[in-house]
Amino acid sequence: MADMSLLTTFAPEVYAQRLKRAQEITKAAGIDAVVVATGEDFFYLVGSTLSSHERLTALIIPAEGTPQLFAPGTDILDLNLSPVPQLDVQVHGWNDGDDIYGQVADVIGRNAGKVAATAALTADHLFQLQGLISAEWVLANTALAELFSSKDPAEIDELRKAAQAIDLVHAQVPELLQPGRTEREVADDLEALILKEHVSVDFVIVGSMENGANPHHSFSDRVINAGDPVVVDIGGTLASGYHSDCTRTYVAGGDITKAPEDFLAAYKVLQDAQMASLQFAKPGRTAEEIDASSRTPISQAGYGEYFTHRLGHGIGLSGHEEPFIIAGNDLVIQESMAFSIEPGIYMPGKWGMRIEDIVTTTKDGIESLNQGPRELR
Amino acid sequence: MADMSLLTTFAPEVYAQRLKRAQEITKAAGIDAVVVATGEDFFYLVGSTLSSHERLTALIIPAEGTPQLFAPGTDILDLNLSPVPQLDVQVHGWNDGDDIYGQVADVIGRNAGKVAATAALTADHLFQLQGLISAEWVLANTALAELFSSKDPAEIDELRKAAQAIDLVHAQVPELLQPGRTEREVADDLEALILKEHVSVDFVIVGSMENGANPHHSFSDRVINAGDPVVVDIGGTLASGYHSDCTRTYVAGGDITKAPEDFLAAYKVLQDAQMASLQFAKPGRTAEEIDASSRTPISQAGYGEYFTHRLGHGIGLSGHEEPFIIAGNDLVIQESMAFSIEPGIYMPGKWGMRIEDIVTTTKDGIESLNQGPRELR
Repeated sequence: MADMSLLTTFAPEVYAQRLKRAQEITKAAGIDAVVVATGEDFFYLVGSTLSSHERLTALIIPAEGTPQLFAPGTDILDLNLSPVPQLDVQVHGWNDGDDIYGQVADVIGRNAGKVAATAALTADHLFQLQGLISAEWVLANTALAELFSSKDPAEIDELRKAAQAIDLVHAQVPELLQPGRTEREVADDLEALILKEHVSVDFVIVGSMENGANPHHSFSDRVINAGDPVVVDIGGTLASGYHSDCTRTYVAGGDITKAPEDFLAAYKVLQDAQMASLQFAKPGRTAEEIDASSRTPISQAGYGEYFTHRLGHGIGLSGHEEPFIIAGNDLVIQESMAFSIEPGIYMPGKWGMRIEDIVTTTKDGIESLNQGPRELR
Repeated sequence: MADMSLLTTFAPEVYAQRLKRAQEITKAAGIDAVVVATGEDFFYLVGSTLSSHERLTALIIPAEGTPQLFAPGTDILDLNLSPVPQLDVQVHGWNDGDDIYGQVADVIGRNAGKVAATAALTADHLFQLQGLISAEWVLANTALAELFSSKDPAEIDELRKAAQAIDLVHAQVPELLQPGRTEREVADDLEALILKEHVSVDFVIVGSMENGANPHHSFSDRVINAGDPVVVDIGGTLASGYHSDCTRTYVAGGDITKAPEDFLAAYKVLQDAQMASLQFAKPGRTAEEIDASSRTPISQAGYGEYFTHRLGHGIGLSGHEEPFIIAGNDLVIQESMAFSIEPGIYMPGKWGMRIEDIVTTTKDGIESLNQGPRELR
């Protein structure tokens, strides 16, 4: 998560509703209890930015009964700055020397059927709980995907605002990409523009020519020339904690005809593939089917080996989360999920390209939250 | 860890030696392999600040054979900026869609006897590995305490430098604690002084009067008066990644006789207890025995219920790590470990006090790395 001291919360009713839904989904999934570690999932459910280190802080959501929140006694005061005191959650402060894992085990039951833990729970705490609680342990973020991957209306509003914020920045990219400037100079301008629209900058990628062929390149002192393909992937965090993330590929100087011919040919394939996925994605499709909807046409056009990453990732309070849109993930996409659709083609030593939109699933399709033109410019 | 981009590394030979020792200790402990997640332990062993998120990055140290490092293909370039290329470590880049957990399971063995994972490994990765590797899973940081809690000479040098750095800051505290100033003003000065001696500030606590009774208070706008007891707990990070952490309790203005009488009486108990622990701690004692060496005299003097936290914590590349000096921890302290000895007494609504030194164990005792006076002043 970004600097959590900057984050704001929704009204307590929003969290009360989420907790209620969490419990319903937990019960319906046949899971006895969910251990929610601190971080994005904890912030999502109770609006607190408390952070567990070697001393356990965790929310236990049982299939029935009141959720229980355990935190070191010294951190209890911080909880009062969050919506927690207004929620139907029982708070337990504990002190060094207390048998905290035993207390959690007693709440969950030492012989449970199935217990879920969120992705952020670390091995030091998890091994202790596994030692005391005999159960089938599963990953909450996938076993309860309906809870952790689908977004309520307030969240989709925030993601829409985030997309609009980053679209405003992308709208200014063509004028920044003047031939003769370095990637770093452009990146510095982008940071300032992102900060105008967000509370923090998550990342800035300005990859011109061969630098664009490394999907994780940030930026360098390379001077950008007229006609250079440039991948610009940028994102930031709103005060609500929700993230933006959008990629467009540009031709420096704006005269498309100056770009390499093989690049222009590949871009057409990429743009068609991305559009195919925007049209294919909807509730009922699996994550791997959506991945294939871009990968298949890119492969058929002969670029398969140069599309080296998954098609997309979920987004919300964390920049990368379930659902991961990737081969092998048979998760069935449902309404109100949010994820990126971002195919790319990376020709080592030459150039790279990527088009990325954040979409949310509607009843029978998707809404692309990012609206900027996908054409080269 | 602090901002990892600021960190520097030792010569490659230091890491080669650590890996060799890690393997010896792993083998001697009857553990088949250790999964080292990114973070402090990974930085300690291979000097890389790579960070694993939803894509696994991990070092696998088998009891025999070459250590294997798995990282996403896009992150492999970053490894070249670390000592890794000069170490006897086999590096595997992997791409989205690869069966990365299967690859790790094949290296460890799917039917292993005992496998250790470091504390920072998160549930998303751990559940996948536990599903493929049938083994007794243990926490590396305790099962291999000799590796993860004892410090080599280069590390103790760094911790000594860190202690000297923070002692220099504490030496200036009496002149900062002028009656009429606020805790925040003093804290601002302390931040600047810590940054002079470190690359980053870890925390600043200035707790006057009743604020000192909250061990995790940071600072407030409270105006400090002459004679107020003030707890000052400060720490920072050196460029090597090693941390300082030292607490002293002061009387604002310096005239001890103006402090509350009950405070002065308790302080004598606290100072004697802390000295008792400095004299008691040595290799062969257990962590809980060392905790008791302060707790027992404080309890006998009637303050037991006001000493609400453990006696200490290990320190190194992380600010809090094994060995935790706490009731219930039967870890036998060995030579060359480093930890804090920091008893405190907290009288709610009135005042607090704590004395904290970082010590390292020698052959038959301890060396206190912090050297500032422990008397009230």
